[in-house]
Amino acid sequence: MYINGNNYRRSVSKAILVISCCFFSPLALSNSPAKSVILIIGDGMDDQQITIARNYLKGARGRLLLDEMPFRGVSQILTVDENSGAPIYVADSANTATSLATGETTSRGRIATSIKTDLDLVTIAELAHAHDYKIGLVTTSSVTDATPAAFITHISSRYCESPDAMIEVKKYGMKLGSCMSDLRTNGGPGSISEQLASAPIHALLGGGLKYFRPNVERGEHTVLESAIRNGYTLLDSLNSSDTVKPSDRILGLFADENLPVQLVSGSGRVAETPKKSALQKINKYLGEVTLPEPMKCKNNPAFFGTPTLKEMSALAIKHLNYDNSKGFFLMIESASIDKQAHERKPCGSIGELDQLIDALSIALEHARTHPNTLILVTSDHSHAAQIVPDTSLFSKYPIPIYTPGRLARIFTLDGSILAINYATTNFEAEEHTGANVPIFGNSVAVSQEIPVFLQQPDLFTIMARYLDLK
Amino acid sequence: MYINGNNYRRSVSKAILVISCCFFSPLALSNSPAKSVILIIGDGMDDQQITIARNYLKGARGRLLLDEMPFRGVSQILTVDENSGAPIYVADSANTATSLATGETTSRGRIATSIKTDLDLVTIAELAHAHDYKIGLVTTSSVTDATPAAFITHISSRYCESPDAMIEVKKYGMKLGSCMSDLRTNGGPGSISEQLASAPIHALLGGGLKYFRPNVERGEHTVLESAIRNGYTLLDSLNSSDTVKPSDRILGLFADENLPVQLVSGSGRVAETPKKSALQKINKYLGEVTLPEPMKCKNNPAFFGTPTLKEMSALAIKHLNYDNSKGFFLMIESASIDKQAHERKPCGSIGELDQLIDALSIALEHARTHPNTLILVTSDHSHAAQIVPDTSLFSKYPIPIYTPGRLARIFTLDGSILAINYATTNFEAEEHTGANVPIFGNSVAVSQEIPVFLQQPDLFTIMARYLDLK
Repeated sequence: MYINGNNYRRSVSKAILVISCCFFSPLALSNSPAKSVILIIGDGMDDQQITIARNYLKGARGRLLLDEMPFRGVSQILTVDENSGAPIYVADSANTATSLATGETTSRGRIATSIKTDLDLVTIAELAHAHDYKIGLVTTSSVTDATPAAFITHISSRYCESPDAMIEVKKYGMKLGSCMSDLRTNGGPGSISEQLASAPIHALLGGGLKYFRPNVERGEHTVLESAIRNGYTLLDSLNSSDTVKPSDRILGLFADENLPVQLVSGSGRVAETPKKSALQKINKYLGEVTLPEPMKCKNNPAFFGTPTLKEMSALAIKHLNYDNSKGFFLMIESASIDKQAHERKPCGSIGELDQLIDALSIALEHARTHPNTLILVTSDHSHAAQIVPDTSLFSKYPIPIYTPGRLARIFTLDGSILAINYATTNFEAEEHTGANVPIFGNSVAVSQEIPVFLQQPDLFTIMARYLDLK
Repeated sequence: MYINGNNYRRSVSKAILVISCCFFSPLALSNSPAKSVILIIGDGMDDQQITIARNYLKGARGRLLLDEMPFRGVSQILTVDENSGAPIYVADSANTATSLATGETTSRGRIATSIKTDLDLVTIAELAHAHDYKIGLVTTSSVTDATPAAFITHISSRYCESPDAMIEVKKYGMKLGSCMSDLRTNGGPGSISEQLASAPIHALLGGGLKYFRPNVERGEHTVLESAIRNGYTLLDSLNSSDTVKPSDRILGLFADENLPVQLVSGSGRVAETPKKSALQKINKYLGEVTLPEPMKCKNNPAFFGTPTLKEMSALAIKHLNYDNSKGFFLMIESASIDKQAHERKPCGSIGELDQLIDALSIALEHARTHPNTLILVTSDHSHAAQIVPDTSLFSKYPIPIYTPGRLARIFTLDGSILAINYATTNFEAEEHTGANVPIFGNSVAVSQEIPVFLQQPDLFTIMARYLDLK
C-alpha cells in the first residue's frame, strides 16, 4: 500500500535523475488543486509531556487541540548502531529527523546521511522542490539544529552547524567529533548553515544567527551574505516582514541560538533533589526528607518581542501559499519541549507544547480554505519527564519516600500539585527515552488511511505518496 | 453521543429498580444475535511497557498483535482527592478499575464506591447481569485484587480482601486502614472475597485462594464454602475443567495470591543501582561507575503448571458462550505487568504483556465466529519503567554518566542491549506515573466510532452503550 522507503535510498544526484524523468505533464497539473503537507514536530513530545501540558493548560478533565484531531496513532522509533547496524533503542533528534525526512534509519548524530557509507539520503523537501512544490522550515531552535537541518542538508554530524565548527566541534569544552569529509575542499557539501544558505527554501524561520556569521569555507564573505546572494530576503524582525514581497524567499534568524521559551518557573527554579536530613543519610528508614517547594509557571520576560511559533508559521504559510497553484511542504518544529526537558524545566516544556498547539491552529486554519492540506503532528522521540504521585502511593509507610532524581512540583489551575520527576541521569542534561510516540492528523490524514501503528520512517512515505513524489 | 456517566450514579438497589423497569421484550431479544464485550486490561501497560515488550519479543522493527488492532486511541486517567474532590494526577489500580467498571471517578484505594458519601457505584458487570448477559472475570492476580474486584464488589478500601482483613488491614507490618462501615454487621456488603462468593459470576478465574479460606464474617463456614453454596463449581486445576458441565458457574483459584509470572531474569536479578568507585563518591567528575551486567530473560520454573491467561480466557469464554443467545461481559486482566514493574523486574513485565497478547488472540478468535463481539484492550495507568540509552547520549563527556535510580540491561534477539530505568522512588516499590494510556479495539470498536481521545470513565459508557444497558 505504501511506497517502499528503500526506493528513495540513493544519492541526491541519482534522485534528481529519477525525478527529472517523472515530472507530471502540465495538463495533469493544471487540473489539480494545490496539495500541501504541513508536518509539525514536537521535539520530545511524548505522552507524558502531552499529559503534563493537558493537566496544566486545560485541567485533568480538559482537552488540548491535539486531542481534537481526528487521526491518532503511534510511531515506533528506529535507530541503528553506526558500525554494526544493530538496533539502538533510544534515538536522538538527528537520526529521528532523518527518519521523518528521508524514510531511512540512521545512527545518532547523523543528518540525512547513511551509516558507514555516509551517502546523502534524499529528503522529502528536496523531492518536493524537485516537483515544484515550495518548501519551508520553521523552528524555535537554531535553523541549523538537527531537526530542521535533516530536511534539507546532509552531514555526518549534527554539531557541524557552521564553517568554523567542521574540524573541531566543541560543546562545554569537549570535542564532539568533526566533519572533515563534509568540507567543501574535500568534495563535501559544507557545514549546515552553508548548505541552508544555498538551499531553495522559500521560508526559513527560527534562531541560529550566530551560525551564519562566520565566513564561508575559504571565502571572504559570511554565510549570511552567501544566503542573501543566493536569493533570500533577510528579515530583521517579524515586523519587517510587512515590507517584503509575498513572493520573496524569506530568511528570519531571530536569535543567536535557540529562541527564548514562552514559560518559565516563577522563581527560575528547575527540578531539584529532595533534601535529606542527617539521619536519613545514615539510614533510609530514619530521618526526614523535604520535597522541593511547589512552583508557579509565569511568562518569560525574555520571550517578550520574540516571534511566536504561531506567528512564524503564519508568515511561512503566507509566503508559501502566495501565487502557488502547486502546493508546498512545510515543517514546523517546537524544539524546546525537548531542550527544556533536558534542563529539567517543566514550565518551559509546557509553554513550548502550548506554542506547538497554537501553530497547529494556524495550520488547521489554512486547511479550512485549502482542503488538500495534509497536517501531521508527531514527536521525534520520548523524553525523561514523568508525572509521579505528589503524595506517594506508599505514603502510609512511616519512612521518607522520594525520588532518587530531581522533582518539580507545579501548582495547577485544578487547585492541585502536578509532580514531575526527572531521573534518567546524574548528568547536567536528562536523557531521551525509547517509547513509541504519538502521531496526530487532520481529516485528510484520515482519508489517507494511515495505519494507527507505523514505524517512524513510514511517515516520509506517507507524505511523499500524498504529494505524488515519485 | 454517549450516555452520560452520571446516569449510573446510584446505589445498586436503585439501579436494580431502574433496570427492572427496562428489560427488553422477549420478541426484541429473539431477533438479536448475541452481543458480547471482552475488556482486556494490562495493568500498568503504558507506551514504555509496550515498546519494551515489542523490542524484546519482536525486535525494534517488529509488530505485536496489539499493533495490528484497527482501533487505537488514548485514555486520560482521572483520579480525585477523597476529601476535596480536586484532581490527583496519578492513579492506583482501584480508582482506575472503578472508572472502567462504573464510569465514575473516585479516590485511590476505593473499589466501586464514591468519595466522601461511600455510595456503591453500579458496575458494568452488574448492569450486564441485570440485562441477562453472563459475566466473567479472569486475572493473573488474586481475584480479590483491585482490578477484578471493582467490576462486581463495592468497598471503601482495596485492602479489605477477606473477612479477617476488615478491621485491621496490614501489609509489611503497616496498618493500611479498615473497612468498618463495610462489615455485614454494620449493614455493609462484607469483604471482597465474601462479595465475590455471592456474586452472579459465571467464570471467576485467577489466584487468591488464601482470601477464601477464612470464615465468613461471624459465620461457621469459610468463604470458599460460601461460594460453593452460592452455586459456584470449584476447579482444583485447569485440567479439572474437563469434568465440569459447560453450563456450570466456575470458580478457579489457582494460587494462594497472585499467579506466578511467565518470565524471569536468568539470574533472578532485578534492576540494580550502578556501582560507584570511591573517587566517584567524592566528586561526580572523577572515578568510575560500573553499570549492572546485562541479563537474559528465561521461563520461570515456578510458572510450570500454572494456567496461562490464554487458557483461563479460553475456558471463561467456553463457559460464558455455552447456550447463550444473549451474550456476555468478560474482563480479562494481565495484572503483573504492573506488579513486576513495582519490583523492577522487566523480564516479568515483558512475559505478562506477552500473556495479555495471547489472551487477546483467544478473544479475537471468538470474535471471528461471533462478530458482535466488542474487544477493547487498555491499561489502567502508566508506570515507572523507561527505556533509556544503553550508551548515554552524552557518552563523549569523560565523566561517569548513569541513572540515579535502578537499571536493568537485557540482551535482545536484535543482538543489542535494552536498558530499562526504574527511578521514581527510593522505596521498595516503584510508583505509578500519570500519562494517558493506550486503548486498542477490534473492528467492532471501529464501527462504534469510539473517539481516539477520551477519558477513562468514557470506556464504561461505550461498553454499556454497546450492550444496550439502559
